[in-house]
Amino acid sequence: MGRRTVEPPISWLMHAALSRPKLISLAAGFTDSASLPVAEARAALNQVLRSPKTGRPALQYGSTVGDPALRKLTAEYLRKLDFQAAVSSSFSSFVLEPRPTTRTKDEDEKIYSPKRLLITSGSQQLLYLTTEALCDEGDIVLVEDPTYFVYLGILQSRGLRARGVRLERDGLDLAHLESVLQSLKRNGELRRVKMIYLVSYFQNPTGVTTSFVKKVGVLKLLRRFERAAGHPIYLLEDAAYRELSFCAGTNGRDALPRVQADRQVGPTMPPSALAMPGAADRVIYAGTFTKPFATGARVGYGVLPEPVFSAVKHIKGNHDFGTANLLQQLFVRALASGIYERQVARLQKRYAHKASVMKLAIKKHFPTAVEWWEPEGGLYFWARLPRKVPTGVKSKVFQTALKNNVLYVLGELCYADDPARRKPDHEMRISFGNASETDIREGIKRLGNVLKSFVK
Amino acid sequence: MGRRTVEPPISWLMHAALSRPKLISLAAGFTDSASLPVAEARAALNQVLRSPKTGRPALQYGSTVGDPALRKLTAEYLRKLDFQAAVSSSFSSFVLEPRPTTRTKDEDEKIYSPKRLLITSGSQQLLYLTTEALCDEGDIVLVEDPTYFVYLGILQSRGLRARGVRLERDGLDLAHLESVLQSLKRNGELRRVKMIYLVSYFQNPTGVTTSFVKKVGVLKLLRRFERAAGHPIYLLEDAAYRELSFCAGTNGRDALPRVQADRQVGPTMPPSALAMPGAADRVIYAGTFTKPFATGARVGYGVLPEPVFSAVKHIKGNHDFGTANLLQQLFVRALASGIYERQVARLQKRYAHKASVMKLAIKKHFPTAVEWWEPEGGLYFWARLPRKVPTGVKSKVFQTALKNNVLYVLGELCYADDPARRKPDHEMRISFGNASETDIREGIKRLGNVLKSFVK
Repeated sequence: MGRRTVEPPISWLMHAALSRPKLISLAAGFTDSASLPVAEARAALNQVLRSPKTGRPALQYGSTVGDPALRKLTAEYLRKLDFQAAVSSSFSSFVLEPRPTTRTKDEDEKIYSPKRLLITSGSQQLLYLTTEALCDEGDIVLVEDPTYFVYLGILQSRGLRARGVRLERDGLDLAHLESVLQSLKRNGELRRVKMIYLVSYFQNPTGVTTSFVKKVGVLKLLRRFERAAGHPIYLLEDAAYRELSFCAGTNGRDALPRVQADRQVGPTMPPSALAMPGAADRVIYAGTFTKPFATGARVGYGVLPEPVFSAVKHIKGNHDFGTANLLQQLFVRALASGIYERQVARLQKRYAHKASVMKLAIKKHFPTAVEWWEPEGGLYFWARLPRKVPTGVKSKVFQTALKNNVLYVLGELCYADDPARRKPDHEMRISFGNASETDIREGIKRLGNVLKSFVK
Repeated sequence: MGRRTVEPPISWLMHAALSRPKLISLAAGFTDSASLPVAEARAALNQVLRSPKTGRPALQYGSTVGDPALRKLTAEYLRKLDFQAAVSSSFSSFVLEPRPTTRTKDEDEKIYSPKRLLITSGSQQLLYLTTEALCDEGDIVLVEDPTYFVYLGILQSRGLRARGVRLERDGLDLAHLESVLQSLKRNGELRRVKMIYLVSYFQNPTGVTTSFVKKVGVLKLLRRFERAAGHPIYLLEDAAYRELSFCAGTNGRDALPRVQADRQVGPTMPPSALAMPGAADRVIYAGTFTKPFATGARVGYGVLPEPVFSAVKHIKGNHDFGTANLLQQLFVRALASGIYERQVARLQKRYAHKASVMKLAIKKHFPTAVEWWEPEGGLYFWARLPRKVPTGVKSKVFQTALKNNVLYVLGELCYADDPARRKPDHEMRISFGNASETDIREGIKRLGNVLKSFVK
């Protein structure tokens, strides 16, 4: 057997959920079942398979990089998302900061070129392929502290090391990033640093959205340390939750993003890191059609600079020679017909509502000593207990919650093993994605009662 | 960048094909476009998505190991294939050999248990995951000489070494396997040997089917050397072409496999390696619903013993957390309704016909100095020129063929880098899978003319 084959923590959680039929799981990142676009998917697939002429290509192998029509539609779609976000920037904080030099139209053409775009089996596969392409055993990836725990699983299984960088309400703590890079440089480890991984929109697990200013700041810092590293340090932007904004109309159809007066950091929907000057050769963007449409259809995509693009393409050739053409054709139809964007708009409203249900329940049932972050999109609330009250798998809080049939994701799972700090163990991720409104209310009530018994 | 990111040879071939519109490609392993089951797939998908009740689960995340109904159907299907093959064994050579002790019904239950079955994105992904799970950098995998070249790409990209074992018309040369194992033992390298990879039915590239006797022989040899290796040595059986037999009725519906009197080695369809005694903890089986139905739907599967099953499951969790549920539901419907088996039967006839067209053309146009193997299934003919006439990428044969607008797969691509022998470079793989009958005739004519100018 190969050396690194550890059971991922999520398996344990899923098992726990299955063995207790009355359990309310606020742990799973599943999508809202009731909103799944069954009729729309059927209509799109009937279009794809309406004749041998349209149907055969969908049932035949495609190319490793993906269907040309889907790559083109995706590139246009991404450009629209970024352009729209830039237009709305007058509402947002990042225009107040010194603005980077704008790019020429030619540069934009290059950035959003379908040639740089690769279709994958969900954005998860893009994360895996990119990490496989860029990193050798023992290399270091910088991650948010906390971060997406399945990504930590990828690092672990590939024998890679992670270094956590503190996360603030608007993205990374840049001063901390600088000090982490300095310290790696001092220890002679900078040459092992290959990339930084950011979940930039409605982050899993905290719900935090990284501001555009911070993206620019991160890239600047990486560039500064590249000479000492001796190679490029890439920024991998995971935008899996980007479209799950609670502001209707952030998906390119209706209004501009609303301004939230009660936030220090303004824009709900900053442009992606691709919109930065200098992004062309350093930013890798991971997106998905899965989360905002139908998670059972597993189509994601990446935008990658050379030489990463070619490396990832070759590795994907070895993994599966390309994502199922049938699913790709489904999304070609869904995007071209408007089905996709209508579904996204519907889902945004649905999640906004479910989040507000959860927020009210939390306000009602959680003790005040528990701090929590209200998301503006995505699927998660992030709650922080007093530092001395652990929430991990062996903690009284978790065990009591389980006994009371309510499940959350342990905060500790979302932290990398990092010798530079003790792993925090007093937080939890709570999801409203798949639970019904009734279950959200009841689940939060149960959890609140548990918390009250351990926290003043 | 990670260290091992080489462009796979197939990309080059595909590029060559695309840049010459008049080229007839006998290289691609694509399936026959005209036979793709467009109406059948549409009907099955309409069934899956007919109501929210049936449709929602198909559009939601599933589990990493795959849909329970599909795992159950697949396990039953596999068992039927093996049982049927065993029943027909009175026609075949392997009953003439000393027959291994038969297994109890309990053992069979265990072998074909859905619990040991994992659904993947094509069988290709199973090959990748298994190799990732079992092998560390520098480890050795034994392969057929020649073998499936994309698998060699997996080994290369993962920093693994391959050792080739000579292939005969009925499978591996067992004496050669023994001597390879002996020599590895002498060099102290046996501890690096983790598995053997066999494409056991209508092999890619040679069309060879491994007899049951040889499978038994291989496993016996592996067991004998395990003590010296210090760990299990697994047999990975890639059965991707199993159902593409030219004998109608080998798919469990109609007649028994026909007996080919002109073959030294009898059975067209021996049981899989799972049917051997001792298979339970050493055999890994890779199958696919893709090739015999619709390659654009990308659903494969594996049967794996512990601890490989769990390791592969965890790695798949990191790759993509599970194959698209929508595709899995398509195959649940296709299998349960009989659509799948009817399509396989149709395809068997179609390929048998196309193979006979190619055979007639080869007989007519190839010079007699070119030896070729007639397949009983699969997608390929394998042709061998005199040893002094190279067929590789820089050879006159290949360049002239390209100039005359006909493409084949270079034999040399199908051989591992193995310090123990010079890599043969005088063969070619010729596929009738996707080419039309007209193109098969014309392509073989062109190729024959090229061959005649280099071979007496």
